Amino acid sequence: MQKKEHPDASLQEVDGVMESAWSCFSTFRKLPGKDRGMFLRSIATHLTTRKDNLVLIADSETSLGPERLHTELKRAISELELFADLAESEKWKEHKKEESKPDRQPIPKPGMLKSNVPLGPVVVIGACNFPFAISVVGTDTASALAVGCPVIVKAHPDHARTCQSLAVLVEHALEETRMPPNAFQLVHGSDHSVTRALVDHRRTACAAFTGSFQGGKALHKLASQRKIPIPFHAEMGSLNPVIILPHALKHSGIELARGYIAAVNLFAGQMCTKPGMLIVMEGEGVNQFRDEIKTAVNDIEPSNMLNRTVFENFQSCNRTLESTYSLIASNRSDSQEDTNQAPCQVFETKGNNFLNERKLHAEVFGPSSILVRCKDEDELLAVTSAMEGSLTGTIHALPGDRELAQKMIPVMESLVGRILWGGFPPGVIPSIATHHGGPWPAATDSRHTSIGLFAYRRFVRPVCRQGLPS
Amino acid sequence: MQKKEHPDASLQEVDGVMESAWSCFSTFRKLPGKDRGMFLRSIATHLTTRKDNLVLIADSETSLGPERLHTELKRAISELELFADLAESEKWKEHKKEESKPDRQPIPKPGMLKSNVPLGPVVVIGACNFPFAISVVGTDTASALAVGCPVIVKAHPDHARTCQSLAVLVEHALEETRMPPNAFQLVHGSDHSVTRALVDHRRTACAAFTGSFQGGKALHKLASQRKIPIPFHAEMGSLNPVIILPHALKHSGIELARGYIAAVNLFAGQMCTKPGMLIVMEGEGVNQFRDEIKTAVNDIEPSNMLNRTVFENFQSCNRTLESTYSLIASNRSDSQEDTNQAPCQVFETKGNNFLNERKLHAEVFGPSSILVRCKDEDELLAVTSAMEGSLTGTIHALPGDRELAQKMIPVMESLVGRILWGGFPPGVIPSIATHHGGPWPAATDSRHTSIGLFAYRRFVRPVCRQGLPS
Repeated sequence: MQKKEHPDASLQEVDGVMESAWSCFSTFRKLPGKDRGMFLRSIATHLTTRKDNLVLIADSETSLGPERLHTELKRAISELELFADLAESEKWKEHKKEESKPDRQPIPKPGMLKSNVPLGPVVVIGACNFPFAISVVGTDTASALAVGCPVIVKAHPDHARTCQSLAVLVEHALEETRMPPNAFQLVHGSDHSVTRALVDHRRTACAAFTGSFQGGKALHKLASQRKIPIPFHAEMGSLNPVIILPHALKHSGIELARGYIAAVNLFAGQMCTKPGMLIVMEGEGVNQFRDEIKTAVNDIEPSNMLNRTVFENFQSCNRTLESTYSLIASNRSDSQEDTNQAPCQVFETKGNNFLNERKLHAEVFGPSSILVRCKDEDELLAVTSAMEGSLTGTIHALPGDRELAQKMIPVMESLVGRILWGGFPPGVIPSIATHHGGPWPAATDSRHTSIGLFAYRRFVRPVCRQGLPS
Repeated sequence: MQKKEHPDASLQEVDGVMESAWSCFSTFRKLPGKDRGMFLRSIATHLTTRKDNLVLIADSETSLGPERLHTELKRAISELELFADLAESEKWKEHKKEESKPDRQPIPKPGMLKSNVPLGPVVVIGACNFPFAISVVGTDTASALAVGCPVIVKAHPDHARTCQSLAVLVEHALEETRMPPNAFQLVHGSDHSVTRALVDHRRTACAAFTGSFQGGKALHKLASQRKIPIPFHAEMGSLNPVIILPHALKHSGIELARGYIAAVNLFAGQMCTKPGMLIVMEGEGVNQFRDEIKTAVNDIEPSNMLNRTVFENFQSCNRTLESTYSLIASNRSDSQEDTNQAPCQVFETKGNNFLNERKLHAEVFGPSSILVRCKDEDELLAVTSAMEGSLTGTIHALPGDRELAQKMIPVMESLVGRILWGGFPPGVIPSIATHHGGPWPAATDSRHTSIGLFAYRRFVRPVCRQGLPS
């Protein structure tokens, strides 16, 4: 058996990592914000300098292609800069001050200053589909480091070399900016036991995860059953429904069909916000729209999935769907047999089938999607209301759809973290108004985001200082 | 067997309550903030008008006495007003806006508006020791209603009549301000199964609890193991350590001893922030200080506990402590035998005993406290570091203690939600800088407060609206 390039950490090693992260916490948190900002900027500089090499390594492990990987790396760099600004401004402390009132009745009121403090060592478990932006140096890591939490990243086994290369750059930055060396550490582990040991360790104060529903759910359970439970934030992906209302469908059917299929097929459908369900109402133009979907699927090039395992999982999910629903469009061809090229596939069902059949509710990781045809407005509302939580929900409407749209918006709002009016997900832009999260099963805690500035709120807690001298 | 005045709700009744709360959610959340503000003000007015009667009922059920109850009712009224302001201002929505950038590369940036939406029906499980401010109309209820969450209160069986009287007033306010009638509902239940059914119900979006560690922990587990887990916020009380540094002890020993004992004995020690542990360092003045503690205990009047069960639990905890540690002060007398009067008791131990003995770490609900004598600075730091999470931590220091205080503050900060510099807990004043929470076991989620303006953050989640027309 070949020796692994990055063997799994032993339980003893995990323990050593967590204890050393804990030991440096008191120093790391006390550093001036501008020092931690410099550290994050130094990481960004290293990523910029080494970008071609990093993309080469990541491409060899993920098949995502240089263009997408360069874009993703740029996003990771801009996120590091966003959180460097935050660290420097110290705005994350969210100071709230109240002056003392010595004459207050029935008792005097002391002066109070409330501000946020970091929780402690944060374990980050990144995703297979974003080797840069949701991995070693993504939002989870950058936001935790910005507020003074040491970070321990569990390397993704599917891109362990990319993780290792990124970690080396972070370690350079640690050294150059004279940070405590254990403020950032990488742990390898292809076995779940490594991840579980990290989440379960007594020094772990919080964990952030992006990945599958099964994995997120199991770790959420573990985190809540520890002797001292910790917050566990999982972003687990979702169906991301798209609803096209009758007037929009009638007038823009062709472009909507093409836009939808492009979104489904983007990066082989391996996006957490890939639209997995398209909901329409029977009526004028629906059959032509269906034909357009077929044409769009036939016209699109299949692309490679991340690796063989992901591809095989996708095939297996498709077989489940095929056994129950009608496949109406596919660009599958025999020449794909020995590749990891994922066929883009659209299944069809009726609204009442969706309401009765639980299988339909599950996310498929890959370029599959389901067209749900509802017989009337009531069924459209019923189908939408019956959906589980999602990261995004999209509504296409024209002025003629106004009345129905006004009924749909609150229903959609109750189910998702981001509503798109027109357009298609993905397209997450990290900033202050970003929310990347949503009701279960999209995320374990819908009140928090894993992308965007406010991602730091997962890693801080307020402390009120009463009567304390400055 | 006597028929109960307020029999337990059946599971069917719980189901009906939760379904009706859910049904009114879509209407209640859409009301203008000023309407929900009026509703909260109307409750406040009813409480003010009926204050004497409410205090009479609550006193008959809790033995807290009219003075304390009038003060507590005033606090509940001012909290309702605080959250009426919040509802009217709609500041809880925390709007974050980003303009669109059609020229952005690689893709255009759509306009985004993020704002908070209410989670859904909130179950409130109040405390035995605050029949007004942490009960039917406390912060949990007021903050949830302010942001548009229907509220279902589980009545505390120890003051069920008080709960019922308060609920009747809330129902008057609902009617007068034309709220959906099911936006507030009270459920009786002395059996835990009623509480569990409420927390476990599929329509429950969040639950807030104040009470014992055992109760909070069990419900936390239940909430995290539901098919769809929900956030569960428990405030479970804590040891609330007080540290007196050498110079402060030497110069202000007498008044600190008296102040400490008064805080321990306040309302028979039945406060979540009652100081349960006093930590000092051996040295000049410590023996005199110990004598002052004895004198202070002898001089103080014992007061009645809430009821016989609470009193008996307290006695049982004291027996456990007595079997291990030295009782150095007590105002117990034979005449108390048949009453619920709680003796104020102080136990003593050495720092290294505290470090070795787990029993010491548990909160006692009642006027008991432990004096921990540490042999030197290292032991003082070790004892403090070994403590579990608390709601509050207090440090008494004089300029001569500066160096040691600077070491103690970060240690204390890592353990508590509120640091007091001088003075003694309790003394929570609800406002913007309030934080009433702390690391486990003080609270299930240290990032949230159960008192003060930001209590509403437990009950909202952000939604990002992308490209949505106004």
